[in-house]
Amino acid sequence: MNLKDITTKTRSYRRFDESHRIDYKTLESFIELARLSSTGANRQPLKFIIYNTPEDCEKIFPYLVWAAYLTEWPGPDEGERPSGYIMILGDKSITENFGIDHGIAAQTIMLGATEAGLGGCMIASIKREELRDEIDLPDKYEILLILALGKPIEKVVIDEINGDDVKYWRDSANNHHVPKRSLKELIIKLK
Amino acid sequence: MNLKDITTKTRSYRRFDESHRIDYKTLESFIELARLSSTGANRQPLKFIIYNTPEDCEKIFPYLVWAAYLTEWPGPDEGERPSGYIMILGDKSITENFGIDHGIAAQTIMLGATEAGLGGCMIASIKREELRDEIDLPDKYEILLILALGKPIEKVVIDEINGDDVKYWRDSANNHHVPKRSLKELIIKLK
Repeated sequence: MNLKDITTKTRSYRRFDESHRIDYKTLESFIELARLSSTGANRQPLKFIIYNTPEDCEKIFPYLVWAAYLTEWPGPDEGERPSGYIMILGDKSITENFGIDHGIAAQTIMLGATEAGLGGCMIASIKREELRDEIDLPDKYEILLILALGKPIEKVVIDEINGDDVKYWRDSANNHHVPKRSLKELIIKLK
Repeated sequence: MNLKDITTKTRSYRRFDESHRIDYKTLESFIELARLSSTGANRQPLKFIIYNTPEDCEKIFPYLVWAAYLTEWPGPDEGERPSGYIMILGDKSITENFGIDHGIAAQTIMLGATEAGLGGCMIASIKREELRDEIDLPDKYEILLILALGKPIEKVVIDEINGDDVKYWRDSANNHHVPKRSLKELIIKLK
């Protein structure tokens, strides 16, 4: 797969075949990709936790908030939940400012997941304090992002945007539609 | 190239063969990759400006601050400067909070550049107000990042980190060395 294919296939997936488990080494290999990626002033302040057993995944799931625009949908049902998570932490003993480092890392990991036949979703909407208690996370770590991963079972369709309405939605066949702005709208020319 | 190869080759390059020009369509294709990438709540608030002519590149160059750790080095000499830039803007008419969207976009673009045989550097240290005046940038756009691109002519070596010293440095042969934390240090295990 070239990068255009990988990028095109890297959609946000929220429904998975939960019986498809992801082994630790695979998740570790995604973090290796992130390790090799850019970081502001080369500080490398990110830390990662891997969750891949059914028990671990069950522990994390309740603290995630899913798909804000799908107000009727509380998140994936049992059997369709992620079978792995990578939690991205900021290590405040290195810096208090993580800038866009976790964006760089998260995207690299999601591209790696696609290449490995997996998919998932970057989740920033997290019940952080409750989760911190649950996993007994030391104060020096900030929870930046959780990457939910699995074998996707939903179809995600990119649509041309209609006006300015960026809300994704699901059709009657449960396909997930994502309106995207055109390249023409994104590239601006001054004067 | 698989993603591991692309990621490994995507180093921060700061010296280029300036005579190697980059065509507009190539830079546009990198932005297409970014267009297809994740964005918080699907808001897509980023805009992009392409600079690729020698005149345009000369206009942007003075507003960039290069390689903070190389205190003796003011930036690339004439003939070794970038031959293209992609400026990433935040459109404040869409949101005031760009989160990590520009990290996601920038990394995707840099990976695309590697695949196309190019390379470069994400630059966040920018004389923003002076540059805004120079290019007459409307107030609604925030300058988030400038990606400097070109045909790299320097060798970048990843070294094992020695203690906690993250500073990159250049050896007598002018090779650029970047200390990276080990995977073992990045993946934490609680309890």
